[in-house]
Amino acid sequence: MDLKDYLHNRSALVDQALDRWLPGKSVLPFSLHQSMRYSVFAGGKRLRPILMIAASEAVGGTAQQVMHAACAVEMIHTYSLVHDDLPAMDDDDFRRGRPTNHKAFGEATAILAGDALLTEAFRLLADADANLLISPATALRVIELVARYSGSQGMVGGQIVDMESEGKEIDFPTLEYIHTHKTGGLILASVQVGALLGGGDEEQFAALSRFAGAAGLAFQIADDILDVVGDQSELGKDVGSDQARGKATYPALLGLTEARQRADELCNIAVEALKPLGAAAEPLQVLARYIIDRNH
Amino acid sequence: MDLKDYLHNRSALVDQALDRWLPGKSVLPFSLHQSMRYSVFAGGKRLRPILMIAASEAVGGTAQQVMHAACAVEMIHTYSLVHDDLPAMDDDDFRRGRPTNHKAFGEATAILAGDALLTEAFRLLADADANLLISPATALRVIELVARYSGSQGMVGGQIVDMESEGKEIDFPTLEYIHTHKTGGLILASVQVGALLGGGDEEQFAALSRFAGAAGLAFQIADDILDVVGDQSELGKDVGSDQARGKATYPALLGLTEARQRADELCNIAVEALKPLGAAAEPLQVLARYIIDRNH
Repeated sequence: MDLKDYLHNRSALVDQALDRWLPGKSVLPFSLHQSMRYSVFAGGKRLRPILMIAASEAVGGTAQQVMHAACAVEMIHTYSLVHDDLPAMDDDDFRRGRPTNHKAFGEATAILAGDALLTEAFRLLADADANLLISPATALRVIELVARYSGSQGMVGGQIVDMESEGKEIDFPTLEYIHTHKTGGLILASVQVGALLGGGDEEQFAALSRFAGAAGLAFQIADDILDVVGDQSELGKDVGSDQARGKATYPALLGLTEARQRADELCNIAVEALKPLGAAAEPLQVLARYIIDRNH
Repeated sequence: MDLKDYLHNRSALVDQALDRWLPGKSVLPFSLHQSMRYSVFAGGKRLRPILMIAASEAVGGTAQQVMHAACAVEMIHTYSLVHDDLPAMDDDDFRRGRPTNHKAFGEATAILAGDALLTEAFRLLADADANLLISPATALRVIELVARYSGSQGMVGGQIVDMESEGKEIDFPTLEYIHTHKTGGLILASVQVGALLGGGDEEQFAALSRFAGAAGLAFQIADDILDVVGDQSELGKDVGSDQARGKATYPALLGLTEARQRADELCNIAVEALKPLGAAAEPLQVLARYIIDRNH
């Protein structure tokens, strides 16, 4: 398979669906919907939606079957970035080369745009038209799963521990807590939802969960490494910004060589977990390799 | 019926359920769960949960049938207060006589506690154990309804228009937009969810929707009036704070006398709407009168 084509095609589908589901700029209140769309259409790679689509395909499902949930997860990811960038949090002025939401729209609008993106994500997950092809029981399970991995013991939990750890010496368990919760949880949720909505059985669900647990952590380690050795254009933020901020990272705790080894190990575990799924899981496998190899 | 007993009994049930559903202070991350609980257990009157319970009872249902949804709606209401109080928004230091969340826990934690309360509300609405007694299709409809009235074209929409209107001359339609969206929507949603989960038919749902539309707006007018004439202990915030902030209010736009008349009219419409429900709707009727009469 051609990864570039695959990514291009699937992210275009996600963009079209997001454009269809998000209220337009001419829907009241204008400023709120403009602000929401500004951050949703800011050049994100749609990693989580594409993982969800690939997981659905890996169990014999389609992109269409997961599209509303893929958009919902991207909206949740986007809200978390908008709030993380706020002055009271990471205080970032730029993201992916553009002013952050609060720099473009003001702090109050950025807070509310994040709140609205989170709420609209759940509205979409519960939308009757979007759920026509699945049982209400499955739709409910998807909502519970997404909420659990996004909430106080998921993504938000990881974010607060990350924030409270800044400038402090932290141990390895704390670093892993941050990463498995702040980014790993929503990646795991995306793959699990793909398995559920794609019609996978419990065995496939378990295999894909093992895959996503390992790949999600590998992705975060790769991101940490990129912050040390990457170039700014690829990263979309200042190189060395984690270090400057006193953020704990894998290279800082393990050293660069061992961090790379750990990412490779996790990548192998992820690929191994896909074996029972056969050829249908090829996109997921290629995606995992691609994510880790960014830093080599 | 004895209103005081009714309010006391129902709000105690809601408090117990909230305590059961919210992660404890000793669940990681501690600071996040402490912050969430600080604002949830801050002496709120549980108006929305009690309206939901009373609506369920009005169609022959029970408090227990709506309890998880009642807690979810209270968590959404609480998150909106925590975010509204932030320095970038209303910049309030006190609420109900206690320091606001960001004053007690810092701004970053307050933002995240709000995010987590909103997310946990949807987790609870989708929780399998909480939904054992209803069909998954009904649970989904409840989630869609709550999300719609809380999102960008609901509560968050009302909040941004309110904020953008501060210090400006606004017209009557804008004032009604703010009130029907910022506070009216979640009140309407609470009553509608009560009707659904209590087992009401479409006719009862429609009657209760008419009731809630009128009562919600009357409640907001009463609140505006209280800001002008009330005493601080009852209001829990500074008297005249809306005026000082340049907020548009009903008394400012209509004058005090006409604002009172409008509240009375709406209260009569609300009570009239309950007629088809008979004696079972008595608590709702008494509640509506109580809400409006605070300012007489």
